[in-house]
Amino acid sequence: MIFLDNASTTKLYKETQSVINLINDQYFYNPSAIYKNGVEIKVLIESARKNIIKLLGGDSFDQLIFTSGATEANNFAINGSIKNKNSKLLFSEGEHPSVYNVAKNLKNSGYNVEFIKLLPSGKIDIDDYIKKLTPEVSFVSIIHVSNETGAVNDISYLSELAKQVNDKIIFHSDGVQAFGKIPYNISELGVGLYTISAHKIHGPRGAGALYIKNGINIKPSILGGGQEFGLRSGTENVSAIKGFEKSAELTIKNLHENSKHILSLCNKFIELLKSKIKSVVFNGISDSKHVISFSLPDAKAETLLHMLDDEGVLVSNGSACSSKNSDNRVLNNMGVNRKLIESSLRVSFDEFNTINEVEEAVNKIEKVYNLYLDTIRR
Amino acid sequence: MIFLDNASTTKLYKETQSVINLINDQYFYNPSAIYKNGVEIKVLIESARKNIIKLLGGDSFDQLIFTSGATEANNFAINGSIKNKNSKLLFSEGEHPSVYNVAKNLKNSGYNVEFIKLLPSGKIDIDDYIKKLTPEVSFVSIIHVSNETGAVNDISYLSELAKQVNDKIIFHSDGVQAFGKIPYNISELGVGLYTISAHKIHGPRGAGALYIKNGINIKPSILGGGQEFGLRSGTENVSAIKGFEKSAELTIKNLHENSKHILSLCNKFIELLKSKIKSVVFNGISDSKHVISFSLPDAKAETLLHMLDDEGVLVSNGSACSSKNSDNRVLNNMGVNRKLIESSLRVSFDEFNTINEVEEAVNKIEKVYNLYLDTIRR
Repeated sequence: MIFLDNASTTKLYKETQSVINLINDQYFYNPSAIYKNGVEIKVLIESARKNIIKLLGGDSFDQLIFTSGATEANNFAINGSIKNKNSKLLFSEGEHPSVYNVAKNLKNSGYNVEFIKLLPSGKIDIDDYIKKLTPEVSFVSIIHVSNETGAVNDISYLSELAKQVNDKIIFHSDGVQAFGKIPYNISELGVGLYTISAHKIHGPRGAGALYIKNGINIKPSILGGGQEFGLRSGTENVSAIKGFEKSAELTIKNLHENSKHILSLCNKFIELLKSKIKSVVFNGISDSKHVISFSLPDAKAETLLHMLDDEGVLVSNGSACSSKNSDNRVLNNMGVNRKLIESSLRVSFDEFNTINEVEEAVNKIEKVYNLYLDTIRR
Repeated sequence: MIFLDNASTTKLYKETQSVINLINDQYFYNPSAIYKNGVEIKVLIESARKNIIKLLGGDSFDQLIFTSGATEANNFAINGSIKNKNSKLLFSEGEHPSVYNVAKNLKNSGYNVEFIKLLPSGKIDIDDYIKKLTPEVSFVSIIHVSNETGAVNDISYLSELAKQVNDKIIFHSDGVQAFGKIPYNISELGVGLYTISAHKIHGPRGAGALYIKNGINIKPSILGGGQEFGLRSGTENVSAIKGFEKSAELTIKNLHENSKHILSLCNKFIELLKSKIKSVVFNGISDSKHVISFSLPDAKAETLLHMLDDEGVLVSNGSACSSKNSDNRVLNNMGVNRKLIESSLRVSFDEFNTINEVEEAVNKIEKVYNLYLDTIRR
């Protein structure tokens, strides 16, 4: 089987699985307990926190709050930052549903919410951003790497623009498809809040985190026993947290090497697909290289996806989280026409994919596309 | 080591660990993906949902929403049920912090929140409940089994009283210390919402659920990709969900036998402790038998706990979630005096504890208590 849906989820690293098993077996005590076995686990959590902040390139006074995943972290970032209904909240049209649907919900509840348009590249339209970036803005959320197209937004520049307008603006970025995929230093991004996820980098489900820059104050998300500095209560998911740490460690350690490999997969894929299917249209520009969106004119993506599935090639018709909708908000906002959206597929690579897999996958795509066209033309 | 803090957390069953490893290894695909490997996992989640509802004794039209744990489920139950600031919300004083602190926060935000007193037994004061149960009540939350004392509230009767006043009242109960610990049938409890947790029954961290009776409507908690019927978005933690199912299955299957064993542990503990330490005071009445709170006059609980820790006996000074506070809200509300609260310890048993362990633990408690008294009297 050729798994080209790595942007939806990834399998645990063997080393991560070992860490998880060790924690479940020997460090299962409640970290809030005050006997030695409890305190020891508290220490394990704090070392994971420090380590991940370091891997992100954060400062020692920055904070990281562990959550059950990136969706929770995105909800937390927004809901924790809301002030009053007069201040303006800015979101890009390219956000993941876990940001976008919270924004839409706030708008429906009477909050002053505006959306920033996308360019055909998949990046945000900076002119539109500047126009909407007025002094009453209190919160901005712009995705770092698009989960639909791999387009990378220049977060350093965008956060700097926000600071120039009002240095009290809380700037959040969803970094789920960026962390461990492209090189950066979070301190240089200039963000106040930043979301990361474990299961996109061969870590466990049930582990995400919200990075909080030193000096940024947000409201708690889940109330209870006061865990996570009172910002996110609930018995800590220790094995998930330590597994997250291990996967982050390995991913960042191998980032340079993996990126080179993924670049070669991406280039090969585009080159081969263009040569075999002249009519293929690539949607946006994948700066990250690990996510590619493309359309095969006149075909229905869902049908192609199932045909590829039967051939052992797993791809996506847009992000897993939006695959239920035949429409694709992000592509739509980029100006991709409806017919091309309906025929759009997404492939996403990771370090375990090979050039051979890419070649075979393109062959299968060509095969099922021709079969599809033959069938409808008959 | 003798682990008598099972109410704080428990170790995974071996069978549960096997299920988790299998899922992580072979069923790691995103359940929102529409290829066969994704759909297959969706089916696994739905079978876990149905199975746990059945183990609870629910009906086929009832719903169960998986969350990251009981704390999230309790927050969700309350925040999802809030209507307007005029309707009254009733909570017992014996709630876990993940209910109590949400209630306090709502009260501080101007909601009409009232708290029901506790009796010295640890149960709620039904007279006080009836007095406060006025027609403007829209939501009630009463813990099923107290995590501090093991006292069991008669949820069937209490929910019936609520229905008589206003059949629109949403009745929630936190069943974390009840599920798998005492026998009941959720349909007979008459609750609209009910919280359960995996890691208290040898299941994984990161898995809890909110049971929602057919006909009860609550607002979504986390927005995003629309998972969990739109009520709780985020990529499903499949291994945690399937691990939860396995632990629930084993716990319910062995409930009768385990309860008998735990009853004998409890009786032995009380009998031995009374015979060895005449001055011991038991706080409340542990109907559940698996949680016992007691005070050793003139001693400081935290010191005793650490001395016992050094002797290899792990106990708690109140629930892990409240252990940071020297005060104990629940015992305080039961009328336990301040001095006795300061000297209160909690032991909690499970099926893996033995009579020998209980005997040894009581010997150690006697030893450290005498040592403590000798030291302060010198």
